[in-house]
Amino acid sequence: MLDNSSRTELAELGEFGLIRHLTQHIELQHKGSIKGVGDDAAVLKADEGHVTLVSTDMLAEGVHFDLGYMPLRHLGYKAATVNFSDICAMNGTPKQLLVSMALSSRFPLDAVEELYGGLLLACKRYNVDLVGGDTTSSKSGLILSLTVIGEAAPDKVVYRNGAKPGDLICVTGDLGGAYMGLMLLEREKQVFKENPNIQPDLEGNDYVLERQLKPEARIDVVQLLADRGVKPTAMIDVSDGLASELLHICTQSKTGAQLFEEKLPIDPMTYERARSFNLDPTTCVLSGGEDYELLFTIDINDFEKVQHHPDITVIGHIADESNGVNLVSKSNTVHPITAQGWNAFRPNA
Amino acid sequence: MLDNSSRTELAELGEFGLIRHLTQHIELQHKGSIKGVGDDAAVLKADEGHVTLVSTDMLAEGVHFDLGYMPLRHLGYKAATVNFSDICAMNGTPKQLLVSMALSSRFPLDAVEELYGGLLLACKRYNVDLVGGDTTSSKSGLILSLTVIGEAAPDKVVYRNGAKPGDLICVTGDLGGAYMGLMLLEREKQVFKENPNIQPDLEGNDYVLERQLKPEARIDVVQLLADRGVKPTAMIDVSDGLASELLHICTQSKTGAQLFEEKLPIDPMTYERARSFNLDPTTCVLSGGEDYELLFTIDINDFEKVQHHPDITVIGHIADESNGVNLVSKSNTVHPITAQGWNAFRPNA
Repeated sequence: MLDNSSRTELAELGEFGLIRHLTQHIELQHKGSIKGVGDDAAVLKADEGHVTLVSTDMLAEGVHFDLGYMPLRHLGYKAATVNFSDICAMNGTPKQLLVSMALSSRFPLDAVEELYGGLLLACKRYNVDLVGGDTTSSKSGLILSLTVIGEAAPDKVVYRNGAKPGDLICVTGDLGGAYMGLMLLEREKQVFKENPNIQPDLEGNDYVLERQLKPEARIDVVQLLADRGVKPTAMIDVSDGLASELLHICTQSKTGAQLFEEKLPIDPMTYERARSFNLDPTTCVLSGGEDYELLFTIDINDFEKVQHHPDITVIGHIADESNGVNLVSKSNTVHPITAQGWNAFRPNA
Repeated sequence: MLDNSSRTELAELGEFGLIRHLTQHIELQHKGSIKGVGDDAAVLKADEGHVTLVSTDMLAEGVHFDLGYMPLRHLGYKAATVNFSDICAMNGTPKQLLVSMALSSRFPLDAVEELYGGLLLACKRYNVDLVGGDTTSSKSGLILSLTVIGEAAPDKVVYRNGAKPGDLICVTGDLGGAYMGLMLLEREKQVFKENPNIQPDLEGNDYVLERQLKPEARIDVVQLLADRGVKPTAMIDVSDGLASELLHICTQSKTGAQLFEEKLPIDPMTYERARSFNLDPTTCVLSGGEDYELLFTIDINDFEKVQHHPDITVIGHIADESNGVNLVSKSNTVHPITAQGWNAFRPNA
């Protein structure tokens, strides 16, 4: 991937040359994207009466990703979809993206093209215009900073703080898979370190690997909720693990919650891999993170509208604040939920 | 500045704790800033009928700044104003800011507070709401990524591509000072490296040091042009040197230009410092960069509206593309202008 033969050095192109090279074929899709790359700022216009949603994410090599097993194209795709997911979590639609990157001199042009290829593929799939960014060198490693612009009708925006006792807690898709993918990739990296002649043994793990390497933003669920006339009372995306996200909703909504272990949606492969690593699958769901599913609460009167949908699972309900935030285990014991989510500043993170 | 006594480690606070700590006293000023820090995305609304302007900048330690002589508070202030300057260069008003930072473990909490103090001071001065961001660790050094959101009436936005032959080329303030400040700071750093007992000799250089360490965005000029009913035909801010910026305008406008050396606004201290470094002051103006003044072109019929203003200097005129982009020297010889601006990817940048 970082092969040095016939490489084009970034210094030959320079900053403006590089940006021009990477962005020359971009065609803006939205009429609201008035001006993209090439001036001091992008010029945008939200649909009549809509509010603008803005979110930004920074990803650092060695902290958020490991290029030892994350291909640059996947990294670009994931960086974009993870950012789009934040807009979905507000019940909005992503529209434009700005991408900044700091690159050390070990990255030749074709590596940057791979990264950009992934970013542009995600933009195409999600119908998002890449409208700006910045590119610079760094003294070490790769740092990505993405800013996504989205929009929503003002009365459709969903915050974290609107849950109320009695609301149902729903989650999309299944959880814990991305963490199992990470565990597998880390294991094979260790094996490879110890014996570079051994080929990685990843066969039969496609689902959890894809969950880790190529997550998707649940814009389909935002659309589905709109189609069925359901406005969640609170919503967040699952980036740091279910426990941490539910605590965000409960803290900001000033409520408690009761979660049922037997309801947690876990894919059979995730379950099996967790067992093979001697991990409790429920712990993987609560603390694993990076699934980028949507966690939301709905008024109980909306239950019928989402019932029986294969991609939405009711996993518990919101309670009074005095109840605390608990997990009811399969054996019917009650455990308080604490955040064991990821901390980028932990020394070994 | 990075004193280790009684330091609070970022790992103790964690990412969410750090963000809460840094942003807890922020009060949003604009009614268009509906929701700031604390959800998956900020929620904004531009004034009725206005377009949204978005620009992003990434700054890397050892590339864009040297903490050896750039205090963190100044760095925060400069990072913000430089970003605001991009919105001014579109003839718009900055409204909201998002700040992401990747920090290595050598930064204790009070260092981050200093940096944030500078950012928030700039926000206060420019009436900008800090509405979001991201914070993470990095394996080395400090990387800042800022995204500014601004707005303008659609018919007031000024691009780089609207200059036409006969237009006057104007610049605000004076040029070359920031580069002289950088040269002085670099010199004193070398002296200190060779003999740590020698105190830095920066006396009498306040103006050029301030130009380097604490640049301002020319929002006052955006206001002044509006008050006088002047809409520039093209505009850009001077971040990479006058030559590079004028070439951007001419390339995008498909024009040439004639610039007059004798008209270039140079502060006497800048002039004298350049001479003391055996540098040609005109070269410093053309290639120095980081002055963050506005370079703009106006229709000749607007000349009287800006004439005699002490902060606006007419330095030349736009010509046909076939004329090329030239500097007419004091001795009346004509030199083609080429971009010698800064390249972040140059090995010794």
